[in-house]
Amino acid sequence: MEDMENWLAKANVLIEALPYIQRFHGKTIVVKYGGSAMVDHDLKKNVIRDVALLKLVGFRPIIVHGGGKEITKWMKKVDIESEFYKGLRITDKPSMEIVEMVLNKINKGLVSMMEKVGVRAVGISGKDGSVLKVDKKLVGDKDIGYVGEIKEVNTELLNTLLDNDFVPVICPIGSDDGFYSYNINADDAACAIAAAVGAAKLAFLTDVEGVYADPLDKSTLISELSVKEAEELLGSGNIGGGMLPKIHNCVDAIKSGVSRVHILDGRIEHCLLLEFFTNRGIGTAIIGDEEERYYEKNV
Amino acid sequence: MEDMENWLAKANVLIEALPYIQRFHGKTIVVKYGGSAMVDHDLKKNVIRDVALLKLVGFRPIIVHGGGKEITKWMKKVDIESEFYKGLRITDKPSMEIVEMVLNKINKGLVSMMEKVGVRAVGISGKDGSVLKVDKKLVGDKDIGYVGEIKEVNTELLNTLLDNDFVPVICPIGSDDGFYSYNINADDAACAIAAAVGAAKLAFLTDVEGVYADPLDKSTLISELSVKEAEELLGSGNIGGGMLPKIHNCVDAIKSGVSRVHILDGRIEHCLLLEFFTNRGIGTAIIGDEEERYYEKNV
Amino acid sequence: MEDMENWLAKANVLIEALPYIQRFHGKTIVVKYGGSAMVDHDLKKNVIRDVALLKLVGFRPIIVHGGGKEITKWMKKVDIESEFYKGLRITDKPSMEIVEMVLNKINKGLVSMMEKVGVRAVGISGKDGSVLKVDKKLVGDKDIGYVGEIKEVNTELLNTLLDNDFVPVICPIGSDDGFYSYNINADDAACAIAAAVGAAKLAFLTDVEGVYADPLDKSTLISELSVKEAEELLGSGNIGGGMLPKIHNCVDAIKSGVSRVHILDGRIEHCLLLEFFTNRGIGTAIIGDEEERYYEKNV
Amino acid sequence: MEDMENWLAKANVLIEALPYIQRFHGKTIVVKYGGSAMVDHDLKKNVIRDVALLKLVGFRPIIVHGGGKEITKWMKKVDIESEFYKGLRITDKPSMEIVEMVLNKINKGLVSMMEKVGVRAVGISGKDGSVLKVDKKLVGDKDIGYVGEIKEVNTELLNTLLDNDFVPVICPIGSDDGFYSYNINADDAACAIAAAVGAAKLAFLTDVEGVYADPLDKSTLISELSVKEAEELLGSGNIGGGMLPKIHNCVDAIKSGVSRVHILDGRIEHCLLLEFFTNRGIGTAIIGDEEERYYEKNV
Amino acid sequence: MEDMENWLAKANVLIEALPYIQRFHGKTIVVKYGGSAMVDHDLKKNVIRDVALLKLVGFRPIIVHGGGKEITKWMKKVDIESEFYKGLRITDKPSMEIVEMVLNKINKGLVSMMEKVGVRAVGISGKDGSVLKVDKKLVGDKDIGYVGEIKEVNTELLNTLLDNDFVPVICPIGSDDGFYSYNINADDAACAIAAAVGAAKLAFLTDVEGVYADPLDKSTLISELSVKEAEELLGSGNIGGGMLPKIHNCVDAIKSGVSRVHILDGRIEHCLLLEFFTNRGIGTAIIGDEEERYYEKNV
Amino acid sequence: MEDMENWLAKANVLIEALPYIQRFHGKTIVVKYGGSAMVDHDLKKNVIRDVALLKLVGFRPIIVHGGGKEITKWMKKVDIESEFYKGLRITDKPSMEIVEMVLNKINKGLVSMMEKVGVRAVGISGKDGSVLKVDKKLVGDKDIGYVGEIKEVNTELLNTLLDNDFVPVICPIGSDDGFYSYNINADDAACAIAAAVGAAKLAFLTDVEGVYADPLDKSTLISELSVKEAEELLGSGNIGGGMLPKIHNCVDAIKSGVSRVHILDGRIEHCLLLEFFTNRGIGTAIIGDEEERYYEKNV
Repeated sequence: MEDMENWLAKANVLIEALPYIQRFHGKTIVVKYGGSAMVDHDLKKNVIRDVALLKLVGFRPIIVHGGGKEITKWMKKVDIESEFYKGLRITDKPSMEIVEMVLNKINKGLVSMMEKVGVRAVGISGKDGSVLKVDKKLVGDKDIGYVGEIKEVNTELLNTLLDNDFVPVICPIGSDDGFYSYNINADDAACAIAAAVGAAKLAFLTDVEGVYADPLDKSTLISELSVKEAEELLGSGNIGGGMLPKIHNCVDAIKSGVSRVHILDGRIEHCLLLEFFTNRGIGTAIIGDEEERYYEKNV
Repeated sequence: MEDMENWLAKANVLIEALPYIQRFHGKTIVVKYGGSAMVDHDLKKNVIRDVALLKLVGFRPIIVHGGGKEITKWMKKVDIESEFYKGLRITDKPSMEIVEMVLNKINKGLVSMMEKVGVRAVGISGKDGSVLKVDKKLVGDKDIGYVGEIKEVNTELLNTLLDNDFVPVICPIGSDDGFYSYNINADDAACAIAAAVGAAKLAFLTDVEGVYADPLDKSTLISELSVKEAEELLGSGNIGGGMLPKIHNCVDAIKSGVSRVHILDGRIEHCLLLEFFTNRGIGTAIIGDEEERYYEKNV
Repeated sequence: MEDMENWLAKANVLIEALPYIQRFHGKTIVVKYGGSAMVDHDLKKNVIRDVALLKLVGFRPIIVHGGGKEITKWMKKVDIESEFYKGLRITDKPSMEIVEMVLNKINKGLVSMMEKVGVRAVGISGKDGSVLKVDKKLVGDKDIGYVGEIKEVNTELLNTLLDNDFVPVICPIGSDDGFYSYNINADDAACAIAAAVGAAKLAFLTDVEGVYADPLDKSTLISELSVKEAEELLGSGNIGGGMLPKIHNCVDAIKSGVSRVHILDGRIEHCLLLEFFTNRGIGTAIIGDEEERYYEKNV
Repeated sequence: MEDMENWLAKANVLIEALPYIQRFHGKTIVVKYGGSAMVDHDLKKNVIRDVALLKLVGFRPIIVHGGGKEITKWMKKVDIESEFYKGLRITDKPSMEIVEMVLNKINKGLVSMMEKVGVRAVGISGKDGSVLKVDKKLVGDKDIGYVGEIKEVNTELLNTLLDNDFVPVICPIGSDDGFYSYNINADDAACAIAAAVGAAKLAFLTDVEGVYADPLDKSTLISELSVKEAEELLGSGNIGGGMLPKIHNCVDAIKSGVSRVHILDGRIEHCLLLEFFTNRGIGTAIIGDEEERYYEKNV
Repeated sequence: MEDMENWLAKANVLIEALPYIQRFHGKTIVVKYGGSAMVDHDLKKNVIRDVALLKLVGFRPIIVHGGGKEITKWMKKVDIESEFYKGLRITDKPSMEIVEMVLNKINKGLVSMMEKVGVRAVGISGKDGSVLKVDKKLVGDKDIGYVGEIKEVNTELLNTLLDNDFVPVICPIGSDDGFYSYNINADDAACAIAAAVGAAKLAFLTDVEGVYADPLDKSTLISELSVKEAEELLGSGNIGGGMLPKIHNCVDAIKSGVSRVHILDGRIEHCLLLEFFTNRGIGTAIIGDEEERYYEKNV
Repeated sequence: MEDMENWLAKANVLIEALPYIQRFHGKTIVVKYGGSAMVDHDLKKNVIRDVALLKLVGFRPIIVHGGGKEITKWMKKVDIESEFYKGLRITDKPSMEIVEMVLNKINKGLVSMMEKVGVRAVGISGKDGSVLKVDKKLVGDKDIGYVGEIKEVNTELLNTLLDNDFVPVICPIGSDDGFYSYNINADDAACAIAAAVGAAKLAFLTDVEGVYADPLDKSTLISELSVKEAEELLGSGNIGGGMLPKIHNCVDAIKSGVSRVHILDGRIEHCLLLEFFTNRGIGTAIIGDEEERYYEKNV
């Protein structure tokens, strides 16, 4: 009988997911995959299975991933020193070659993991079907090489794949008008793609719990931020290093038509499922100013 | 933290459902809805939400329902005495009128419950689109009135509804060549429809635990029966009253191309979800002789 | 030779229908079916065959029907007293149950008659596919129970059926936001549906000859009324009881985009065919102010 | 009141047509148009309107026409003497030029008449879309010039036009493998086309009443002939001149899959409507041996 | 080895065509076919094969043709004197009959030539599918008979044919509201059709080299003219006889949305290919004022 | 005038291509890209533009490529020694990683080149959409690591891309049932893919002139070989090293339904165009025994 109660509890979990499944049925969602969730083997398997579930219950997921640590590792292997300028990797031709090889390796690895759990996936870069067209990124006078800024997202290939039931797995490489390859910031790529395909949700898997009102006080984690509130926070000077551009990205994405953007803690197992299928607010959601709020602040 | 473990458990339930969702994605399944699950208000709500979930994760459910007790209640209300012959209701014209009114009432009630949980449903009888064509049932020399035997299932309306994302909710009334209305056994209707649409699964919600090898010994519940084993059991004389025609029906359905037929205990909450999304064998499954077995016998 | 002349006359009737068939080919038309035409067996058969013909020559008919007398008959059968307030049936829960059962009975009966003449039909209420969403009707302070006012018509199911060659037969029951059932005035339902599907024509089968300029003088039957003229007539105080809301309905329908609304005398055999396929003006047509007139006034 | 009876009679004519409309709805029918019905202005207008009606009530008509008398008239105009061998026009290059010009003139004239009554039509010869491919007809040793025997019907263009709601109007000219133009017997063309498109009916408009058991006795007109009976009649020696090849054609058409072939008297007004929409057997029908018979012999 | 160089040269020609093929892929182009290219047998064969190639590499060509000299020849044959008024043929009923017969003869001849090179073609006049609707052309008080001015182009038939991979071959005959046939200037027809289908290019095959800045000086051939320049030229008084209306036509076509109009010298072999697939400017192009220029003036 | 002759010659080259374009219009063709044509920059650009032209004139090309020399270069860069066993690279995990990175690098490079000439391309490996499923290759008792033998080609992704106008560019990596990556011989991959998609043609770009009857005598190059002749040649002992498996592959491909397989000399500029668009036989064609022969043997 104990056993039966257990099963019943399981059934109830499925039933609880019902309204969440309905809300996003047929909608396109973009998952920016990065951080610890890409390194830890178990977390990785979980992310893949979570995305598979999203696909199977009728969502149209797109994965955009980076490859930071792996790139540095391979740079060393082939004796190229990694140089940075204002936080951006200076990417000369030999570096770009390594960047592209490593990102494609990660890309096809993710595809295999998706296929293994029975979901059809296709690994592309922004060069395929000219999905990501870039301009060379300018940082004052400094030439930082093949680092690109997205100027156009061509959604034809993405829609072809989504409409035919494939999950696009995208690595952030684009080409300029001369069809040279450029490295793109993965967060930027995820945002631009989410905006271009009119995603209902964009979720960043990060290595932080979310956005804090006061970064020094972990108890001030914010569950939900309107664009207006986010912009105030950006102006407050309270937002530090890595989070700053991410929040800027989130705000841009919302303004380009994405309904909700989530900063999730990728170190939490199944954080995607928790976010998509339960009413537990994990991490921080940035939403349009008129968007209905789901969560009360946790403070 | 306790809280987090709880959430994680929930996520794992969803993940466990993954292979089951994949197996039946896009497949048509027929649920014969009857017994206690149609009377008890909570069970009823559960069945509806279970079917909604099946629909949302990509299955194509069809509901076929009966209305036994409700019919008898209304017969009394309008002072018609219920007469039976060999277990079949003798259905003269006035009785048939009541039968049809009551079944349609139940039918549209189920539709409203489906719509309430956000699933689009359409309530039809076998007269709509001539879905169920019958001959008058002959029981020796005895005229038992408007009781029909299905001779043809016209799937056009069913496919139109399924292909356009509606859940057909069907009450077992058909018409003969003169387009008179006939009462049909709901189990028969479910079987004929499952066979005609090429259902992957047919599930009977009943008021028993399943099939017993020895009906007097509750510990002999059988989890899985091949057609061959089912036919041996039918021959053994060990199968009693109501279960006999049901097993015959199951065997017929399998032979007409349905992959798996399940006799479920509708008194168990969410028995449909347990059956479809977990590896817990509840009730009894009848399967083709070459079909792969999922469960070990419980004995 | 006489015989041949006879046949020739028949051929000429068909040829005369040609321009009328062309005018409405592929157009959706709504027939509000009620009054004597629903009671008299021969008239009933004629209406059904007329609608079948409309379907076959390329129109897309929708039938909306009521059930007044039959409801009262069944109320008596189960000992519920019919109470009215300002002409509206006070509909408590037990009454609503009977209303729904009787309307569905009539509904499926019409479906069978359509199928019998070879036209595919589906009987639905406004609860199926949430076709009719209502608010509770307010009549001053008086609570008249489950009587609804249409607030939204969901055309998805209607279009699915029409596009797949089925004739929708609709009984005027809708559901509110809590998915409770409500009785709706059939004329209102026909109007709202005609407006929502963009019908080219809406025809009311009634028990009157049409609209009279002077109700006391049968020689003042009006063949055609522009919306402006209809509104003047409504203001004149010359229009009596049952006709008043019907003309209001007609005017609303025209304003919502229906091209022509007809008040036909359902007691005339084949009045639908006469209206659709000949240049004989029977009954009264309400038309947009700029609509071309077909008939001269009969006065 | 008299007036009303008159209208009622008209309605009944339409209702009588109902089963005939149903039987051929969506079916392709071929009308071989020729004889007096092509010369007399009123008959011509009637044929056109009859075909328009067939189209509007859901049939898919194809017209195949000849041009006998008109060709001879133009031959004279340009001083070419018409020569015949065994009933076939000897068609040298200059003759063929005239034949083609005259047939196209008639062809486009029929198209205009169809368009005038509101039906979309396209005039083609067998050269367009290579609909009719021929071999040179051999008559013993005699070279009779550009007279062709059909070896292949290419239905692509026909289906494109039918599927897009155009009525194909076809003149019997084909091309050989060298793409030279050839004159084809119009009856042969109609038969070959009817067989190739799988027509449900093929109707010949002729200048005779039909087939007589005894050609000398007008009272022996035959209403219906099975293929077997037709072949017996052909063997009997009782069938004279022009009728012989026509009956051969009919039998061939039935054997190639056409359901019914009709030899109609094109001199009777609206003979097509009488044939398609009433139970009056005019002319003679050749039907498959197992086809159900509609008419009793008139004898 | 010499041989190999030769083949390589050939491959390079194909490769040079690449950007031109890309530019017009899937675009509709109209070729007005007339002049010497319709008389000389070899030029004729070349035009047909050129159009076939355009079709095969993914363009959607439409041919519009005239028939000037052939008409005059046949007029004589049947002893009708050709009369002209202000350059327009006075077209009484008998003349119109000849005009139509001759144009249809040419029309079907071109179809056969297209079919011979393996391209599916359909020969139509503006009467088919009511493609060209006209008003009677008025020239002051003078009645010049059945000469029409286009008032409407119905593109349904054209699109049906193009979408189903047929090349429409069109002769310039239209019908008025009474469905009488009218002769239309072929240049006008080509322009109106190009504008109606939104052609990317309209090419006139003529018997001149192109437009000259000074008609007396052959060295002043103009390669490219903007609409503005063309209008200045028209105002200059330097443009003579036949060229004047043609340039007016070109300007009108551009203003109606055609991107580029070309006046080509049909006496040059494969002038269509040279124009479409190479960067050699032959003849004169009229282009929109903001259109990019391809050629330098040849002067 | 000289100039004009030159242009005319160009036009004639295009016209000569006409029948070749027609023959393969809409057909799928597979190009195995390898050897010198992948190393020499000019040859590379030519191959890309040739494939672009094939795409634009209506063929559906698929590119399959290898990466031999580049892999060896990168192995050295990361200090992995290349080991071979019976001509097969022994591929341990670290080697496989390099193989995959290099092949993907080449793959995406080809995609960029295709996109640069205006053709939409997508670079995939056999892991994407599980296009290539493999078993571990067994070479007697020797474990040669991640070297795979194709057991199944899943064409869904390929057809999705082809049907949506993308050129698939495929590198020969597949996954086994455990979804580990395996290196596949590129010739094998090209053959299996050509067979699976029902290619009309499979062309190998190689570094040899073709097949010689006597490898020592360059004058014995064979233009065309039936399967039967190819098998005799294989039996003759006259075929050496690298050519042996290639001919086996060709024969297998033909037997699996590919119509023609070509061994081309990739060192000849535009060899693909010469093969596809001219009647010059370059290299050796293997064809089905009943296939029509195009070339005479060169001997």
